[in-house]
Amino acid sequence: MEIPEIKNVDLRFSERAQQRWDNLIKPLGSLGLLEEMVARICAITGNDMPTVNKKRILVFAADHGIVQEGVSAYPQDVTGQMVRGFLSGQAAISVLARKEEIDLKIIDMGIANSFSHKNLIKIHINNGTRNFLKEPAMTFEEMNEAFQAGVRFAREAKVEGIELLAGGDMGIGNTTAASAIYCALFGLDPELVTGKGAGLDENGRVHKVEVIRSALAKWNMKIGDAQKILQHFGGFEIAALTGLYIGAASEKIPVVMDGYICTAAAALAIALSSKSKEYMFFAHSSAENGYQVVLKNLNVRPILNLEMRLGEGTGAALAMFILDSAVNLFRKMPTFEQAEVSRKKE
Amino acid sequence: MEIPEIKNVDLRFSERAQQRWDNLIKPLGSLGLLEEMVARICAITGNDMPTVNKKRILVFAADHGIVQEGVSAYPQDVTGQMVRGFLSGQAAISVLARKEEIDLKIIDMGIANSFSHKNLIKIHINNGTRNFLKEPAMTFEEMNEAFQAGVRFAREAKVEGIELLAGGDMGIGNTTAASAIYCALFGLDPELVTGKGAGLDENGRVHKVEVIRSALAKWNMKIGDAQKILQHFGGFEIAALTGLYIGAASEKIPVVMDGYICTAAAALAIALSSKSKEYMFFAHSSAENGYQVVLKNLNVRPILNLEMRLGEGTGAALAMFILDSAVNLFRKMPTFEQAEVSRKKE
Repeated sequence: MEIPEIKNVDLRFSERAQQRWDNLIKPLGSLGLLEEMVARICAITGNDMPTVNKKRILVFAADHGIVQEGVSAYPQDVTGQMVRGFLSGQAAISVLARKEEIDLKIIDMGIANSFSHKNLIKIHINNGTRNFLKEPAMTFEEMNEAFQAGVRFAREAKVEGIELLAGGDMGIGNTTAASAIYCALFGLDPELVTGKGAGLDENGRVHKVEVIRSALAKWNMKIGDAQKILQHFGGFEIAALTGLYIGAASEKIPVVMDGYICTAAAALAIALSSKSKEYMFFAHSSAENGYQVVLKNLNVRPILNLEMRLGEGTGAALAMFILDSAVNLFRKMPTFEQAEVSRKKE
Repeated sequence: MEIPEIKNVDLRFSERAQQRWDNLIKPLGSLGLLEEMVARICAITGNDMPTVNKKRILVFAADHGIVQEGVSAYPQDVTGQMVRGFLSGQAAISVLARKEEIDLKIIDMGIANSFSHKNLIKIHINNGTRNFLKEPAMTFEEMNEAFQAGVRFAREAKVEGIELLAGGDMGIGNTTAASAIYCALFGLDPELVTGKGAGLDENGRVHKVEVIRSALAKWNMKIGDAQKILQHFGGFEIAALTGLYIGAASEKIPVVMDGYICTAAAALAIALSSKSKEYMFFAHSSAENGYQVVLKNLNVRPILNLEMRLGEGTGAALAMFILDSAVNLFRKMPTFEQAEVSRKKE
């Protein structure tokens, strides 16, 4: 699989950004994580005075063959139904994106019951993946096609002047895929990183753990072999997100991870190209069981913790506001000298 | 001191709100704390479909006599200088309020070096409080005047249709006042709740602890005697914030606490009238040392944790966006029936 090259972020810009923060009219360091966020955006973009006005969220939707094993509380039809909700402007992500003036794109990566709509971007690699308890979820070609589509979306965003990017997901069964990915990538037992998804009861969750455990035993792959793990357990939306994140890093666009599913794609992206991590912001601490373990394995700290677990890019949309506010403060606050405010006593 | 009456919030509205959330097109409970926030706003306002479009932050500024004891890293002039920054639209709170279309009011409650400006509301009770190591910070009359001004600002907000209210603070020396208030209110040792404020070094912080400890010993007041504690240790801005919070509760306006200083006023408001707590949202987990202890004593969980410690209402401004987003989702998302999305399998 061809992986676009990613350069290191330029730390001279983050150092200069911190110097500017230290001269603005506020106590040193008093904007906390907002200061770090902006410094990193400067390093990512190679810009001393960045803007993140032009924001975009790409929501990738796809179905998962593993639902045949009874791992989801909702019927598979819900994937397409929710996509109609996104397109109608009524679903959670649509409401949030409109409020924040985030450009929202909805992509059919492989919905089982596909349909056409003027605002639905069709990549549609297949009518859902295969059941990964029986065969690999995707062929190599399918995975590669989905991944490269994600990379292209990042390139397109760059050409169109997008300054802050995020992905979102929709796919009944995709928490099972994500859990399997985490287990295989980090060498974890599924019990540690398997939650109730959209609404399983405890019996359902235990069954989901067993399905994942059986699949892990069947494919027995090397810990950290990201490409194989993605092909065997992933989904078309997860492969596209992985491509999007690597593409964003390659194009030097700061990119925001959403919750449980998107972070699985982020973990794969980091495994495929470790430099991609420096371009990523983690939006929020998903309430899906096991997400804390994932954050620890990735050694990252999310921006928000509102106990959300909705997906769609909803956490990313809220976090984008925080990032935008931080950049806005950085650009608009004056220095002590400009404002004629006295400095700290020596 | 006359305290406006506060009614209990109406839990029938929060129950109905949760029923609505459960019918919207998303997994049950998947918007986490956003769902709780909206349910509480419904209970506060007695409205099944509330809006929080009209938002206001009142920033109260005042000086503190305790700075004579060398408890602050910045000279007292900075209070007035920063207020000029608020009025010029350049300070952090001004930048955030403009971005979020929050109406911002700046009030001189008692700046030492006062001045006039067309947009500065002058209550100006005195040129700063007295040094509370030597005498009570305020007379009873001064405290009452400041408190009742806060109550009036809440009433005025109600009349003007404000739907979400917050306070902010500016006052060199006010973390010392706030720490003393926490100690006296909760019976805590100052070591537990005394931080570096706007920028003391560790020696400075230890001195600040000693000043607070001496003052606590001198006045030796009953734990929880909110009125006396406010008069002896408080400031004009803290008294006004206390009045604002009680006034907001009395007028059934949801009100957002900012950080370390505002929460001291919130703690006093709760001690004066416990029902006020149900009307309060705590914006963020201030990075000021001891704030975690305070949250534990109040048994509240803040909306954000961005390690900010700037004051001015900056944390409240960011949290107001989250509250507004939550209400917006509640109002605009369709039910499963409306959107023709399949429900969970039985």
